[in-house]
Amino acid sequence: MAGSTFGNIFKVTTWGESHGRGVGVIVDGCPAGLELDEKTVQQYLNRRKPGQTRYSTPRKEEDLVEIQSGIFEGKTTGTPISMVVYNKTQRSSDYSEIAQYYRPGHADYTFDQKYGFRDYRGGGRSSGRETIGRVAAGAVAEELLKSMGITVQAYTRSIGGIAIDPGRADLADIMKSPLYMPDLEASDRAEILLENKMNEQDSVGGIIECMVKGMPAGVGEPVFEKLDANLAKAVMSIGAVKGVEIGDGFAAADSFGSQDNDGFRKDDTGNIIKSTNHAGGILGGISDGSDIILRAAIKPTPSIARTQKTVNRNGEEIEISIKGRHDPIIVPRAVVVVESMTAICVLDMLLVAMTSRVELIKKFWDR
Amino acid sequence: MAGSTFGNIFKVTTWGESHGRGVGVIVDGCPAGLELDEKTVQQYLNRRKPGQTRYSTPRKEEDLVEIQSGIFEGKTTGTPISMVVYNKTQRSSDYSEIAQYYRPGHADYTFDQKYGFRDYRGGGRSSGRETIGRVAAGAVAEELLKSMGITVQAYTRSIGGIAIDPGRADLADIMKSPLYMPDLEASDRAEILLENKMNEQDSVGGIIECMVKGMPAGVGEPVFEKLDANLAKAVMSIGAVKGVEIGDGFAAADSFGSQDNDGFRKDDTGNIIKSTNHAGGILGGISDGSDIILRAAIKPTPSIARTQKTVNRNGEEIEISIKGRHDPIIVPRAVVVVESMTAICVLDMLLVAMTSRVELIKKFWDR
Amino acid sequence: MAGSTFGNIFKVTTWGESHGRGVGVIVDGCPAGLELDEKTVQQYLNRRKPGQTRYSTPRKEEDLVEIQSGIFEGKTTGTPISMVVYNKTQRSSDYSEIAQYYRPGHADYTFDQKYGFRDYRGGGRSSGRETIGRVAAGAVAEELLKSMGITVQAYTRSIGGIAIDPGRADLADIMKSPLYMPDLEASDRAEILLENKMNEQDSVGGIIECMVKGMPAGVGEPVFEKLDANLAKAVMSIGAVKGVEIGDGFAAADSFGSQDNDGFRKDDTGNIIKSTNHAGGILGGISDGSDIILRAAIKPTPSIARTQKTVNRNGEEIEISIKGRHDPIIVPRAVVVVESMTAICVLDMLLVAMTSRVELIKKFWDR
Amino acid sequence: MAGSTFGNIFKVTTWGESHGRGVGVIVDGCPAGLELDEKTVQQYLNRRKPGQTRYSTPRKEEDLVEIQSGIFEGKTTGTPISMVVYNKTQRSSDYSEIAQYYRPGHADYTFDQKYGFRDYRGGGRSSGRETIGRVAAGAVAEELLKSMGITVQAYTRSIGGIAIDPGRADLADIMKSPLYMPDLEASDRAEILLENKMNEQDSVGGIIECMVKGMPAGVGEPVFEKLDANLAKAVMSIGAVKGVEIGDGFAAADSFGSQDNDGFRKDDTGNIIKSTNHAGGILGGISDGSDIILRAAIKPTPSIARTQKTVNRNGEEIEISIKGRHDPIIVPRAVVVVESMTAICVLDMLLVAMTSRVELIKKFWDR
Repeated sequence: MAGSTFGNIFKVTTWGESHGRGVGVIVDGCPAGLELDEKTVQQYLNRRKPGQTRYSTPRKEEDLVEIQSGIFEGKTTGTPISMVVYNKTQRSSDYSEIAQYYRPGHADYTFDQKYGFRDYRGGGRSSGRETIGRVAAGAVAEELLKSMGITVQAYTRSIGGIAIDPGRADLADIMKSPLYMPDLEASDRAEILLENKMNEQDSVGGIIECMVKGMPAGVGEPVFEKLDANLAKAVMSIGAVKGVEIGDGFAAADSFGSQDNDGFRKDDTGNIIKSTNHAGGILGGISDGSDIILRAAIKPTPSIARTQKTVNRNGEEIEISIKGRHDPIIVPRAVVVVESMTAICVLDMLLVAMTSRVELIKKFWDR
Repeated sequence: MAGSTFGNIFKVTTWGESHGRGVGVIVDGCPAGLELDEKTVQQYLNRRKPGQTRYSTPRKEEDLVEIQSGIFEGKTTGTPISMVVYNKTQRSSDYSEIAQYYRPGHADYTFDQKYGFRDYRGGGRSSGRETIGRVAAGAVAEELLKSMGITVQAYTRSIGGIAIDPGRADLADIMKSPLYMPDLEASDRAEILLENKMNEQDSVGGIIECMVKGMPAGVGEPVFEKLDANLAKAVMSIGAVKGVEIGDGFAAADSFGSQDNDGFRKDDTGNIIKSTNHAGGILGGISDGSDIILRAAIKPTPSIARTQKTVNRNGEEIEISIKGRHDPIIVPRAVVVVESMTAICVLDMLLVAMTSRVELIKKFWDR
Repeated sequence: MAGSTFGNIFKVTTWGESHGRGVGVIVDGCPAGLELDEKTVQQYLNRRKPGQTRYSTPRKEEDLVEIQSGIFEGKTTGTPISMVVYNKTQRSSDYSEIAQYYRPGHADYTFDQKYGFRDYRGGGRSSGRETIGRVAAGAVAEELLKSMGITVQAYTRSIGGIAIDPGRADLADIMKSPLYMPDLEASDRAEILLENKMNEQDSVGGIIECMVKGMPAGVGEPVFEKLDANLAKAVMSIGAVKGVEIGDGFAAADSFGSQDNDGFRKDDTGNIIKSTNHAGGILGGISDGSDIILRAAIKPTPSIARTQKTVNRNGEEIEISIKGRHDPIIVPRAVVVVESMTAICVLDMLLVAMTSRVELIKKFWDR
Repeated sequence: MAGSTFGNIFKVTTWGESHGRGVGVIVDGCPAGLELDEKTVQQYLNRRKPGQTRYSTPRKEEDLVEIQSGIFEGKTTGTPISMVVYNKTQRSSDYSEIAQYYRPGHADYTFDQKYGFRDYRGGGRSSGRETIGRVAAGAVAEELLKSMGITVQAYTRSIGGIAIDPGRADLADIMKSPLYMPDLEASDRAEILLENKMNEQDSVGGIIECMVKGMPAGVGEPVFEKLDANLAKAVMSIGAVKGVEIGDGFAAADSFGSQDNDGFRKDDTGNIIKSTNHAGGILGGISDGSDIILRAAIKPTPSIARTQKTVNRNGEEIEISIKGRHDPIIVPRAVVVVESMTAICVLDMLLVAMTSRVELIKKFWDR
């Protein structure tokens, strides 16, 4: 079990390495009848494409997606959707040196320990390019959710400690910020920090936040397959994520019951809603009908030009300085990845939740 | 898929409600030949038993475990280990009122939305008693890991914002603190905070930390089944957990690459080790041989005596005050649950990791 | 992965050995709202109880089922249904000799090879008593299917080569035959064969047939999770089953396309139906709306009193004669087991099939 | 869950339709260090290629495989192996008529019922071309098994009732027969039958047998994940398979215990072996060290030129004659598919079986 598959019903399997022929994904279990084409998927992929701003590597990667199966006459057929992005730039020479030593903060050492050797070119399977498959699959999930009135949106919440001011943030501004921060003032300050750190040959971490709006209540299973448990796995499975929280998250640990509990009330139409949303839209592992809110902590880019101490494969202690231009921050390009994993997970659990009640199952089959 | 099973090889399935005949667990896939008896499992269960300190409900629950299958002549046989704790105190009358309204912070509303009705007695399936099965299974996992030189230990890191001082903390002191805090000075201060909050009819949250020592490198799969991703799911699946982090976790988001990267060096015996452990023992989803460190944010007990606003099943807005004695804090009793889920997850991934290399597989079967 | 769980959504996990405290099952993923009580489940279990006819062991086993969780106010709650049958007669002395040698046709040798030792009492985990859990779970599945108008019925098709005459068979007669053969004339002849073989200290095999009526079209997934593939696994997982076939089965291999193809036509109400049913109700792995028909080949009881050659655990060649009264035929008691596994599998695939079409998913959630 | 994935540890996911861009497979969980290249995989694929004999469609399909990931420096890396065969001949015009009606014996009707519409070109996902992915994955599995001394070999056992004579059959002759029958005399007679049926515009079924040699004892799990249960699913999941049997299979149902039981004895080297192999190498779901033997019943090709009655999508009864040249028999080309699914399943269960014993697990990690 190399664990390249995620999901129970809506199953996503990614494949490919940074410097192989390409990277791709199989989406198995996408329901039939969703309108889908390459152009739509491409729009999602473009959000993680490098070379868009000066904070991402200037490598030119077109990352054009091809859909190879599962679509007929413009609609999903219910069979596996295979999507591939062929690798164009494969300057393996850049990476020959890496084969010899273990980069701090990377998976070089653990791959060698696990497999006995590794494809050292560009990080191989642990390259950020693996997330192309996730985003392509996420595009399918988001489009399906959207058709049901459910939207998923991620953005940058903080960079190197500079956080958005929720009072000032406007989700409509996300695409105006090169860092995808919905608070443009914070975005400006974060840019300055990034400049400084780039000059210091250093890198910066940050926090991504994701919201799911229009979510029906009743999605998620009550014990191990809680919606929040699966979201935690989905998001933590993204490279560089070191923490996940739902709703108030770690702040809830410093809080009191009288503050943290969300009371219920009636809205104008008589529906039951929560007065507040400290829980982040999930109670007992099941969606409660309010917005789902999660946050992911992203560590700084481990590839830095600054001199670092490490060892080589022979176990000799050496000093290294990682060559090549690398993103000084992972966060902006990871925003759409967090959004994608959230969408995949939410859709999967939504499909699972259709089997919870005898009366609804009977009604379904009595068509 | 009600999702009551966790794990790929070492599979844990819990069952039971707070006020049914009992709660239990099936451990399927435990390897044959592990020495195990009820007394050993009981020691783990005693750590979550209520009524041990004044910070937990005075309900007297003996919680005596019976092993019903899977053991022969004192050893596991490789077949399912069924363990049960029969419910003794089932004062259902206490809970009749709850049937009518939705308690803030509880799963009452979401269960009703999902299933159309719910077993309202004592929280039913979302009761804390469900974790008895997790701890019994965790006992099996921990005993097996221990026999391989791997230890798992959880403790309280902070309560209501009062955190242990790592410099002062001594893991040997954990059991001396009624709150399982390894820093007795912090423990004393946390007790005072708890007293105050109990007087105010309020409750408190906190953070649990868990360490895995003696972990071999190479455990965890590189993409969706990352060791940290599975740990995040395992721990987030515990009721009341609102966040999970590995190593530096959310602090890494405010950090820089030059700080966060862990350099490699040689130890006295010539083995490769990391100089620091900001990563928390996992790189690229795979264990790196250093200690695994994770933290879980636990929300305050939602059941508080203080008056709260909510609605009843008819959608009428009401005010409630939750009767009965409830733990003013979930953290101390959840410590062993976090430890159990960590042990279950680590063992499961360790078994999966045996299938990573052709040469080792050949050697295994050439016995 | 000891593999004690079956199913994707409707998940069945059995536990227990012949001579442990009991045998049981967890049904996880049963939808909420099904009326269910112990009396109903007991009726299914009574059909596999020993001591009912002279063709089954005279051991008195009451096999009374207890439901321990998952039911509230007479209905399933959607949470795990734990059911147990405690073992009453545990005359372990009968089995002490078996510990020393490998019975032909039994799993003694393979358990020892796999696990290093085995619980030798009464077959341990490979005992026929394991099927109690399957039948209890099958009862739940059948009751749910029945509420949707889908019936599952198994019966004996042949014993030692004596087969029912389809023209003469009447499913209403099944319970009139001590061998559960719907053709009473064939049943009489099979009884005479059984008498003879019992006198010769020998045992007999046979074939069980199972029909599913009222099945909607569209159930089953098109590639690896074909309905017939899962039925084959479900039924072949029953001890002593050596073959499974669907529709014409092995006879189709000797047939020609012009004979084997089922043409489509319209019925009186204008619905599309098949003119014949050589396919056994499944085309391309998906139910076609006609009856599902499968057959299972059951080997003769391996425990026979006649002298047999084998080896003991020390590898010495010996002659044995298996003591105790054993069923001279497995078939009659396995009928309800085949029916149960069929029901579990069909229900599981029916729940999975709810997620195949976008338009139906939208309609479901637009409630 | 469209169910396009097979396996627990060695996971195989196929994708693609007959007339899309191509068909392919992801093998996830292949251990690192296996020597593998496209040439090796191609040899397996060539065995199912059409146009090899006059009994298969004269369509020229090169079916050249490309490995897109998972190999580095000639060896598997432990990461997903993506393999693709691009479709070359896509004469969709041939199939436009099929869109309008339901072919008897095909999945046209059931796909429409399940998904609301279907990709009607060449059978879409239920096309025989889907098995290209299975064979490519089977090649990987067989190569790995071979490196461990385990061989898997399938061949034709009977065609239209003409069976090989086991006394005369020689496995070395398989490739000399255009029908892959190891008894050349039977092969000659089967060819005559095929000629006759082709002249009659009809098609023929048959039986494929598969043997696994060099199998260690102890593989397979004792309850639902029995080795034979998984083999039954693996093989029944191949289109056109209507029955599966292990060892004596359905003949065991007509047999007696004294005949069917396999006694144990010592071989010349003192090892315990079975004197006979009626069980087909599996006892209690676990391999017993003797050869594994299974058989699959294959129905006649459903596409026949002879006039057939059916209905169109409007429900009107019509007569059709299926145009184009179709294989008059599926069996020869399916031989390598049965072999592939057997290899995939056996390897997967062999990897799972590494986690059965504490002592062996400890030894593994004490490296």
